[in-house]
Amino acid sequence: MADYVYTFAAGKAMGHAGLKDLLGGKGANLAEMCGLGIPVPPGFTITTEVCTHFHSHGGRYPDGLQQAVERALDGMAELMGARFGDPAAPLLVSVRSGARSSMPGMMETVLNVGLTSRTLPALVAKTGNPRFVYDAYRRLIAMYADVVMEKAEGIEPEEGEGIREQLDRLLEAVKSKHGYATDADVEADQLEALCAAYRARVKEVLGKPFPDDPHEQLWGAIGAVFRSWNGKRAVHYRRIEGIPDHWGTAVNVQAMVFGNMGPTSATGVAFTRNPATGEATFYGEWLPNAQGEDVVAGIRTPYALNDACRTDVNRELPTLEEAMPAAYRELVAIRDKLERRYRDMQDIEFTIQEERLWMLQTRTGKRNGPAALRMAVEMVDEGLIDRREAIRRLRPEQLDELLHARVDPQDARIETPIARGLPAGPGGACGIIVLTADRAEALGKEGRQVILVRAETSPEDVHGMHAAQAIVTARGGMTSHAALVARGWGKTCVVGCGELDIDLKSGTIQVGNVTLREGDWLTVDGTRGQVYAGKLKLIESNPGDNPQLAALLAWCDEVRRLGVRTNADSPEDAAQARRFGAEGIGLCRTEHMFFDETRIQAMREMILADREAERARALEKLLPYQKEDFKGILRAMDGLPVTVRLLDPPLHEFMHLDDKQIAELAAATGKSVEAVRARLESLHEANPMLGHRGCRLGISYPEITRMQARAILEAAAELRREGVDARPEIMVPLVGAPAELRHQKKVILEVAAEVKAETGDAELPVFVGTMIEVPRATLLAAEIAAEADFFSFGTNDLTQLTCGFSRDDVGTFLPLYLEQEIYPEDPFASLDQTGVGQLVELATERGRGARPELKVGICGEHGGDPASIAFFHRAGLDYVSCSPYRVPIARLAAAQSALDDG
Amino acid sequence: MADYVYTFAAGKAMGHAGLKDLLGGKGANLAEMCGLGIPVPPGFTITTEVCTHFHSHGGRYPDGLQQAVERALDGMAELMGARFGDPAAPLLVSVRSGARSSMPGMMETVLNVGLTSRTLPALVAKTGNPRFVYDAYRRLIAMYADVVMEKAEGIEPEEGEGIREQLDRLLEAVKSKHGYATDADVEADQLEALCAAYRARVKEVLGKPFPDDPHEQLWGAIGAVFRSWNGKRAVHYRRIEGIPDHWGTAVNVQAMVFGNMGPTSATGVAFTRNPATGEATFYGEWLPNAQGEDVVAGIRTPYALNDACRTDVNRELPTLEEAMPAAYRELVAIRDKLERRYRDMQDIEFTIQEERLWMLQTRTGKRNGPAALRMAVEMVDEGLIDRREAIRRLRPEQLDELLHARVDPQDARIETPIARGLPAGPGGACGIIVLTADRAEALGKEGRQVILVRAETSPEDVHGMHAAQAIVTARGGMTSHAALVARGWGKTCVVGCGELDIDLKSGTIQVGNVTLREGDWLTVDGTRGQVYAGKLKLIESNPGDNPQLAALLAWCDEVRRLGVRTNADSPEDAAQARRFGAEGIGLCRTEHMFFDETRIQAMREMILADREAERARALEKLLPYQKEDFKGILRAMDGLPVTVRLLDPPLHEFMHLDDKQIAELAAATGKSVEAVRARLESLHEANPMLGHRGCRLGISYPEITRMQARAILEAAAELRREGVDARPEIMVPLVGAPAELRHQKKVILEVAAEVKAETGDAELPVFVGTMIEVPRATLLAAEIAAEADFFSFGTNDLTQLTCGFSRDDVGTFLPLYLEQEIYPEDPFASLDQTGVGQLVELATERGRGARPELKVGICGEHGGDPASIAFFHRAGLDYVSCSPYRVPIARLAAAQSALDDG
Repeated sequence: MADYVYTFAAGKAMGHAGLKDLLGGKGANLAEMCGLGIPVPPGFTITTEVCTHFHSHGGRYPDGLQQAVERALDGMAELMGARFGDPAAPLLVSVRSGARSSMPGMMETVLNVGLTSRTLPALVAKTGNPRFVYDAYRRLIAMYADVVMEKAEGIEPEEGEGIREQLDRLLEAVKSKHGYATDADVEADQLEALCAAYRARVKEVLGKPFPDDPHEQLWGAIGAVFRSWNGKRAVHYRRIEGIPDHWGTAVNVQAMVFGNMGPTSATGVAFTRNPATGEATFYGEWLPNAQGEDVVAGIRTPYALNDACRTDVNRELPTLEEAMPAAYRELVAIRDKLERRYRDMQDIEFTIQEERLWMLQTRTGKRNGPAALRMAVEMVDEGLIDRREAIRRLRPEQLDELLHARVDPQDARIETPIARGLPAGPGGACGIIVLTADRAEALGKEGRQVILVRAETSPEDVHGMHAAQAIVTARGGMTSHAALVARGWGKTCVVGCGELDIDLKSGTIQVGNVTLREGDWLTVDGTRGQVYAGKLKLIESNPGDNPQLAALLAWCDEVRRLGVRTNADSPEDAAQARRFGAEGIGLCRTEHMFFDETRIQAMREMILADREAERARALEKLLPYQKEDFKGILRAMDGLPVTVRLLDPPLHEFMHLDDKQIAELAAATGKSVEAVRARLESLHEANPMLGHRGCRLGISYPEITRMQARAILEAAAELRREGVDARPEIMVPLVGAPAELRHQKKVILEVAAEVKAETGDAELPVFVGTMIEVPRATLLAAEIAAEADFFSFGTNDLTQLTCGFSRDDVGTFLPLYLEQEIYPEDPFASLDQTGVGQLVELATERGRGARPELKVGICGEHGGDPASIAFFHRAGLDYVSCSPYRVPIARLAAAQSALDDG
Repeated sequence: MADYVYTFAAGKAMGHAGLKDLLGGKGANLAEMCGLGIPVPPGFTITTEVCTHFHSHGGRYPDGLQQAVERALDGMAELMGARFGDPAAPLLVSVRSGARSSMPGMMETVLNVGLTSRTLPALVAKTGNPRFVYDAYRRLIAMYADVVMEKAEGIEPEEGEGIREQLDRLLEAVKSKHGYATDADVEADQLEALCAAYRARVKEVLGKPFPDDPHEQLWGAIGAVFRSWNGKRAVHYRRIEGIPDHWGTAVNVQAMVFGNMGPTSATGVAFTRNPATGEATFYGEWLPNAQGEDVVAGIRTPYALNDACRTDVNRELPTLEEAMPAAYRELVAIRDKLERRYRDMQDIEFTIQEERLWMLQTRTGKRNGPAALRMAVEMVDEGLIDRREAIRRLRPEQLDELLHARVDPQDARIETPIARGLPAGPGGACGIIVLTADRAEALGKEGRQVILVRAETSPEDVHGMHAAQAIVTARGGMTSHAALVARGWGKTCVVGCGELDIDLKSGTIQVGNVTLREGDWLTVDGTRGQVYAGKLKLIESNPGDNPQLAALLAWCDEVRRLGVRTNADSPEDAAQARRFGAEGIGLCRTEHMFFDETRIQAMREMILADREAERARALEKLLPYQKEDFKGILRAMDGLPVTVRLLDPPLHEFMHLDDKQIAELAAATGKSVEAVRARLESLHEANPMLGHRGCRLGISYPEITRMQARAILEAAAELRREGVDARPEIMVPLVGAPAELRHQKKVILEVAAEVKAETGDAELPVFVGTMIEVPRATLLAAEIAAEADFFSFGTNDLTQLTCGFSRDDVGTFLPLYLEQEIYPEDPFASLDQTGVGQLVELATERGRGARPELKVGICGEHGGDPASIAFFHRAGLDYVSCSPYRVPIARLAAAQSALDDG
């Protein structure tokens, strides 16, 4: 039979840190510390198995538990020179929950258990401090009545006021009667009387007396902790965090120690390294003559542990090192011991009772991104951990803090955003509000910092978006135009801020009752999706100049299997991504290249053309531009593959024209204004996402494909003559039928043959593949693979079609869906693995089945999402492609996925 | 070793009708006739295996073929008293192709083979008719040079003019020189000279002489026929018809007989029953002293076979019965013999050479729908076939001709439509053009026949559509609004007529150079998708009064496994569908119910509501209307299931408002005009198909679902109290996640519990299921089935999402896609079995796996398409649901699918 009770005392512990499943995190760490010889108040842990038994047997404990607890209490008595319930030398205990993984505040705690009418006098005698004793007793009664007698019994308080509130009112009455400001002013005899009043009120309200038997108190507290595992809050928390119900909680019973027993007592919390910077210095706060909760409650200003962590507010207050040098030295030794043992930064709690140091808790400490990086790399240098472990130590999202400036979390205004939206581009930025792209560009040229705020953005806004520090839109989702473009440039962006009511005419933004004007300062937190009025403090970043980041990412590259490419449409973006470690371009969109003034004119002429010859003439004008674009990108990616997607958007995206532009276009093309209008009208579609776009354009107008293929291949051929290793791959978008790819491939191969003949470059590499973004394509992947050198999942459109969600319109219901947990996550932010993921797996399997050498990648926005990257790794893809600023994150996520494999 | 050559002569045949695979259709039927003792010119068939061998051995024949052919020719010689190549008594033969299934005109034929300089004189002497002989010789040279020497050799004619055209010009030159009107005017000596000129020209152009050796001619012709199997036209035809390349063609070599050897010779074609009416009377045409092609060429007016088939044009001309009574009697006896043997109507060809009757061909004859039905039912009565065979005899589409009026195919104008579109609603209709729904309604009330012509239709046009004889739209696909509504009412409809340029202001339609005006007559052929100017002749139908149709469909019901329901939104449609045999309603759309004047007002108030209470108030107004609608439909379907779909379309479909209406609505709801406008604006979506619709509405506004569920269930409860067996099934649309259905089901079950309590009807049936129309739902079908009593595939939306096609915009590229065979068929007309079909199968399998009793149906437009119905049968669905006028077709198609199972 397994033990139900694990004792720990004086350097001897039945458990250790490896028994978290059985003892919970807290219990396992207490046992571990005890085993390491670290002073821990003696006690014992009742295992999680007892919790499971308790709940599966109608609240009954397994046989033998009571005896085991008694034995453990006996053991504590020997060590402490005090015995639980002994009227002469009473021992008090704390009863705390402790599950496998931390569930902060979700379960119950009862302190000071063991105080009864019979044990009180001895304690008063022993401490000579009746105020301290009656205060402890008062706290016990209140806590116990609330946790054990009311909540754990499932008693619903009448009129919404629980027993705790009622008892608190008694205390308040005393304070107001005597004009006391704080609890500390209440005197000993007043507290004693209050305890009597508490007990009377408990009996009156709950119908039974507060137990005056220490064992009844103890078992009541233990049962209440076990019951709290199935409390409403705890169950809800488990649902969210995905913690299984059957895990259960352990119960930790431990001798009470007090930091509030006078000037030689103290309490504190510390981190073994600085959690804000990662620096390897001991960092913490303490308070003399105080209880643990006083340090965190913020009523008294905490003192610094040592010189290194003094701040402005406690510069004049003594450090622990100064005030209690012996205890401090002991604490430093424990810090070193814990770091060596846990090989990670620890978050510890300690109490000093009359000069004696007791450790109450150790656990792995939370840290921000820069700190996580620094600790991981330095711990490798120190030999504490290996490189693989260092890789595991950073959550990929934490890299964002290194790659982008961010809003200072210490800025108090961070609690009061004026609007919330979707976190489309991480980072923080400040600037003055501008409402049009042209104005953003103009002010940007003057060196002003601007935030572009739009209802939504379109390709015509990109110059203004480029000039802005950040972009905010009222509409759109995680893959809306604004989101895509912003992420591509690593720009801060919040989309779908439905609360913003933008009035271009008056140049104002209405948000609830607040009116903002063009020129007002705005701060955008794109990591959290929040917008603030005014100029908040930012923390800058400089990823390019961070050798620790470079080191960690290099280690990642050693272990990952998944390639990491980037989505880039310009030589600048390509170069930036290459600096971030991109191994090629997975998606080069060609349509953005057409929005320049001169080019869009030719584009529009092409669209207006009535005949193929006319169209071909307009396309001929575009050819040299396209070729130059491709040369720039291919050159920046010398030696690496560049996947170029052929024209994808519906043609009307190029035709947002006002009356004047229509007249000009009519004049330029020699058509009537009516004819131009009629053509514009004919381009209108009810659902453009499902309309005449992608390869449907290339099949309707093969001359477009021909021009683009020629531009790509001529660019490559010319670069190769210069000695550049240009490696273009041509990608056909929106294929849903094998014959579509066959058609476009034929056109491309014809052009390739021409270019090879014209340039004499017989070795010119010609790869033709396709986006897999239409559900039908995943079903027919075998047949399509027969025509394709590569697949690249376009998971944005695949998600739109598989879920039936328009990324532009999803704001009308997706927030509600996420709130109601109809979808666990925004499927445009993190791949819908249960749905869309099935199609990714299916297409990969069928495609490779038909063509084992098929290269399979993904170039949707999910290529930069760590959870999605882990999925793509498991699905066996060859690479992910993401925006330049996500490349480091993808490298890390890919490495972690590889480590997870074994 | 198998025989390569199958002879038939004088009642003895090696083959029979069952050997079509080996002998081709023509050869097998010739053998069969011969075996039945029917006079057939003797001959032999070279098997399809020889064709396969020929093509797989570089044009070489298998060993022994030559000897077998020689032996067969010897056999013919004995019978005909003439020998192939014998200068004294020469035998001429025809060489014809004949594949397993008819490929009309796709392969080659050579006639009069065996005419050479050495055999000509004897034939002239024997016939005493040099003109006849030289004309035959001239034809042989022309045909042979073309088919054998040019085409089969793959010679590309220079300048586009083939040898045949050149030889024809020689003939034309003679005619014009002598002023002859027809070929028949050319005299014998002129023909003899022409033959010499032909031979010279052949040698000059093709570089070798026309062969003067009969065996060389014969083998040349045989080879040419085999080669023509792989000719461009034949290969293309096989691709379209799905005929495998390896089938090959047989070659039929047969003694020539001549119907043009004088007044005792004749030729004719006949059907064993009337192919236009199905009447069991012998029906055909003949010509004295003529060749077969003369009958069909239409140069001479053909004579009637007998009194019964005389027409206005040949009333004065003698019938075959009158002119050649003996031959006619023999022919009648053969007709009876063939019908008994083939148990089907035969299409035969015969030639009478100098009073002797020869049968040249028999094959199953083509017939129209009404004829097919009559023949099938009468043949069962006659005991020729059984009921199962009768069911197989009708193509489901042929029922359309019985269910709808149609444009008379005899009307000459049928060849010149002014516009073509998609055949969205079968049948034919005439009416005057109207361009607005209101005008259609107004004129309809005056009893005028009108055709409503619109760019596209919306729910606001339905009153005008109802009043119109037919609907024509310039835009939209097979599942556009116009198409759906028209099919629902069995109305003729052509959609996507892109050529129509409608100008509402001037009240005109421009089609190319033609201008039509409101009030002009128009004829619409919705079966073929064609539109005609003017009033063409129609053939009316009266399906309700057709006992043969009723009988056949009753036989169908005996054998089919698949249930047939209907899509109906009104009591009238429901009753009509029930008369057509619908076994329930598979899809009752509820949104159409809101377009009535008073209702749409409440609907709009609901949409404008800011708060739930306001919305609930507006919905309360709608409740009694909805309940009455459901009562009407449930009553009409007494005892049968009625699947009601909850509100599906995006709300903006109810909000097409002009300025006046906006002002009125603002006044009615006490909101400002700006507020109403803002709400309208906020309803705008980039891609409404993928937007806020379906269950997304019901989840955002559960009170809508609550109102609809209440209306349905109260309607059912009230009817049940009246003794009506109401069986509602509630269908949640657009589910993509299990939690969506869970949410809506919970709302519905809450309402159900309330209604049960209120009405005291504890047995009230409550079934809740879902449309499967989002690809994700098919992938998660197991989880969704856990919540669903039934699935109903919404294949319209499933097709849109799986293929990424907007049904409203597909006109921009789908016609090109069909032309280029990128998709074999319009996936909105016939289910895309290779793509969408995979998801249907997957969802059915997974859904039933999770819940074996799950009822699975389909309610998309594909439910009325025979090919799709066969697929749904194979996929194991429980029922299909289609528009009322497709119900008979679905019953037939379902029965045929069941028969195909074995």
